Amino acid sequence: MRSTNIKPQEYKVGKEDRIGANGHLPCIVWFTGLSGSGKSTIANQVEQKLFGAGIKTYVLDGDNVRHGLNNNVDFTEAGRQENIRRIGEVAKLFVDAGIVVLTAFISPFKRDRESVRSLVGEGEFVEVFVNCPLEICEARDVKGLYKKARAGQIPDFTGISSPFEAPENAEIEIATDRLSVDQSVETVVAYVMNLIKPAK
Amino acid sequence: MRSTNIKPQEYKVGKEDRIGANGHLPCIVWFTGLSGSGKSTIANQVEQKLFGAGIKTYVLDGDNVRHGLNNNVDFTEAGRQENIRRIGEVAKLFVDAGIVVLTAFISPFKRDRESVRSLVGEGEFVEVFVNCPLEICEARDVKGLYKKARAGQIPDFTGISSPFEAPENAEIEIATDRLSVDQSVETVVAYVMNLIKPAK
Repeated sequence: MRSTNIKPQEYKVGKEDRIGANGHLPCIVWFTGLSGSGKSTIANQVEQKLFGAGIKTYVLDGDNVRHGLNNNVDFTEAGRQENIRRIGEVAKLFVDAGIVVLTAFISPFKRDRESVRSLVGEGEFVEVFVNCPLEICEARDVKGLYKKARAGQIPDFTGISSPFEAPENAEIEIATDRLSVDQSVETVVAYVMNLIKPAK
Repeated sequence: MRSTNIKPQEYKVGKEDRIGANGHLPCIVWFTGLSGSGKSTIANQVEQKLFGAGIKTYVLDGDNVRHGLNNNVDFTEAGRQENIRRIGEVAKLFVDAGIVVLTAFISPFKRDRESVRSLVGEGEFVEVFVNCPLEICEARDVKGLYKKARAGQIPDFTGISSPFEAPENAEIEIATDRLSVDQSVETVVAYVMNLIKPAK
C-alpha cells in the first residue's frame, strides 16, 4: 500500500490496492487454437469455476469484442494483427484493474501473441494452447466455417488457407481431442489458482 | 441469477452474477471538460473514495489509454472520434464486468459522448460536465498546452482552435472555478453511490 501522506492530491488507486481488495493477483489467460478447438467453451467454464471461487474475472471473446471495439478491423493480415493488438491492450487494462481476464481468439501468429505477453509482467500471461487436430476441428465444424473455407468463400482461414503457428512454450497445452471438457477446465483452473494465490 | 439447468455447457457468468458478487451496480462516470478543468484530478479522487467504500472501480485516462490501445489514432477529427469510440467500447466492457469505470477525456463533441451513452443501459452512463471557464484553464495551464496552442504549435486545440460542445443535459455539472476539489469530489461520489446502491 502506497503512502498517501506526501502528495495526497496525486494519489491514484493502484494495482497493489486492487490486489489487496480482491485477495488475488490478476493475469491474462490467453487461449489460442484453431476454430472449433474448444477455446470459448473452456474459457467460459474456467471463468465459471474461478468466479465461483470468489475470483474477479472477465472473458473477452468474439461476442463482446468483434461487434464493439473491433468492429472496424478487417480480416486482412494487418487487420487481424490490429484485432489482437487491441485485445491485448484491453486485457492489459483489465490486469491493471486487478482482474483475471480470459481471452478466446484463434490468434494464429506467434509474434502477435508474444507482443501481448510483453505488455504485462512476468507471471501475468498464461498462454493456453488448445491443441486439437485440424481434422477433428473440421469434422466438428460447429459454425460451418470450414465448409465455407474449403469452398473458397472465406479467404485466409486459419488451418485451411492461412497458417496456425503453434506455441512452443505455452504455459499450458490441452489436447482437447483426448481430454474431456471437464479435464481441460480443471487443468487450467488448477494452474491459474496456484498462480494468482487467492487468499480464500 | 439465470438458471443453469437447461444448457449448462452454454452458461456464461453474466452481469447479474457480477453485480451479486460485487454488491453494487456498474456504470460509466464520464468526465468531460476543457484541458486543465480538473477532470483527472476529480476522477482519481472520486475513484479513491469509491474504492475505499468497497466499490469495484477503474479509471481510464490519457495515461493508460493514449500510449496503449489508442497509440495509433491521430488528432484529426476522425482520429479524435475513433479515440472516444474505443474508450466508450472499453468502458462498456468494464460495465459488463461489473465495474464502476471513470473516464477523464476532454471529449469535446456532443455526438461522440451521446454515442457512448447509447452503448450502455439506462442509468449506466453518468455524464459529469467539469465546467471551468477557458480563461481559468488557460491561466492555470498546468501542462503548458494552452501556450503552445496560442503559438500555433498544436492544431485543433479544444477551446482555442477547436470547439468544446458543452453538455446540455449532463447528470452532474461541476463549476470547478467555484467549488473546491473536495466539494466537487463529494458531489460526484454522492450521486454515484446513490445510483449504484451498494449493499454495504
